[in-house]
Amino acid sequence: MEKRDMLYEGKAKKVYRTDDENKYVIEYKDDATAFNGIKKGTIEDKGVINNKMSAVLFKEIEQQEGIPTHLIEYMDERHTLVKAVEIVKLEVIVRNIVAGSLAKRVGMPEGTKLASTVLEFSYKDDDLGDPMINDYHIKALNLASDKELEIIKKYALQINKFLQKRCLDADMILVDYKLEFGRTKDGEIVLADEISPDTCRLWDVNTKEKLDKDRFRRDLGNVEEAYIEVARRLGL
Amino acid sequence: MEKRDMLYEGKAKKVYRTDDENKYVIEYKDDATAFNGIKKGTIEDKGVINNKMSAVLFKEIEQQEGIPTHLIEYMDERHTLVKAVEIVKLEVIVRNIVAGSLAKRVGMPEGTKLASTVLEFSYKDDDLGDPMINDYHIKALNLASDKELEIIKKYALQINKFLQKRCLDADMILVDYKLEFGRTKDGEIVLADEISPDTCRLWDVNTKEKLDKDRFRRDLGNVEEAYIEVARRLGL
Repeated sequence: MEKRDMLYEGKAKKVYRTDDENKYVIEYKDDATAFNGIKKGTIEDKGVINNKMSAVLFKEIEQQEGIPTHLIEYMDERHTLVKAVEIVKLEVIVRNIVAGSLAKRVGMPEGTKLASTVLEFSYKDDDLGDPMINDYHIKALNLASDKELEIIKKYALQINKFLQKRCLDADMILVDYKLEFGRTKDGEIVLADEISPDTCRLWDVNTKEKLDKDRFRRDLGNVEEAYIEVARRLGL
Repeated sequence: MEKRDMLYEGKAKKVYRTDDENKYVIEYKDDATAFNGIKKGTIEDKGVINNKMSAVLFKEIEQQEGIPTHLIEYMDERHTLVKAVEIVKLEVIVRNIVAGSLAKRVGMPEGTKLASTVLEFSYKDDDLGDPMINDYHIKALNLASDKELEIIKKYALQINKFLQKRCLDADMILVDYKLEFGRTKDGEIVLADEISPDTCRLWDVNTKEKLDKDRFRRDLGNVEEAYIEVARRLGL
């Protein structure tokens, strides 16, 4: 597969067209940003870990859960071949434990176990700061059809059950994370973007030590080591 | 009905117990606040208008739409007798036209007609600044049961159809407004609180002149006159 012109450069990834219009190549970078780009840095070999972790988990989600993803194949340390999708302009936040913005929003202490899984939707718009929106906004802004939103919610909750167990088997609590979905050329909704310590909060099951990008956001040190530890525990 | 000890004092109303434990008296004040209490003032005879308008509209909603409300009877200029309810800790925002916080949140210009009615829910908590929450937060925080939330949404959309027409017949556009609901001692969900220029954005249908509390919030002048004009147009 030949990598052609760059279609998009995000904070942590680049997306390239290929010689097949139905396929893109994702390239994972080591660049790290936080607080909507205000904080910037580099996490050595983060791109390698995030690429591997996403490819492995997406394959498992597809094979074990029957949920379609954008994954075609893992290419090399930095690159994965994916289906050409149009990204649904929603960040789907899945929460099992209170942390981050939810703690501030509803005044519950970080670490509180939620009585039921919380899904949140953010409108993917950097200029607006990815504001939280609800089903009615999604409809009024025409970001997804009712049917698509229903599928996205169903997939998110099913993926959550799978990932919670997958993490717990690796002695980690899956606190919260972000999912993104895409539309293929055929209009199918598929899981897209990545699942990695950049997009998940993962805590050690016993010590509650943070093993994710919060180490970077909150200047906790040992950032690279945490990413490597997550990869090790997941058997990547 | 004898007014006894004060149960609660809010920004614009006081609620009193009565000699019947199933009945409260609401007293409407002229005090006006905005921006979660940061801006304070008085709007002369606002309480009289809001009391009358709420009583009249609640009666119409009950009689014409069959939706239960807390209203028992209008007592005098400042007082209304209502059912003793426990307020559901949600502000239900109903939006037909983009204005206020929604314009900022999603970057749409004030005055844009929404493709479909938008409902928003805020967690009634002054310390947290009444943050916007969604169905999943409501469930996790146990603010309302799934069944109650379903009823609240159904009532809100039905009330909206009624009020939109009622306002348009009075040459006003119902831009957006806040509703609150309560639980009676029998566990019935009923419309509570008030419907008034304090809680609604109302624009003249032709000139788009603001006829509501935004005149106070935004220092537009002629605040009292606007409230009187709304009452006049609605035939109160």
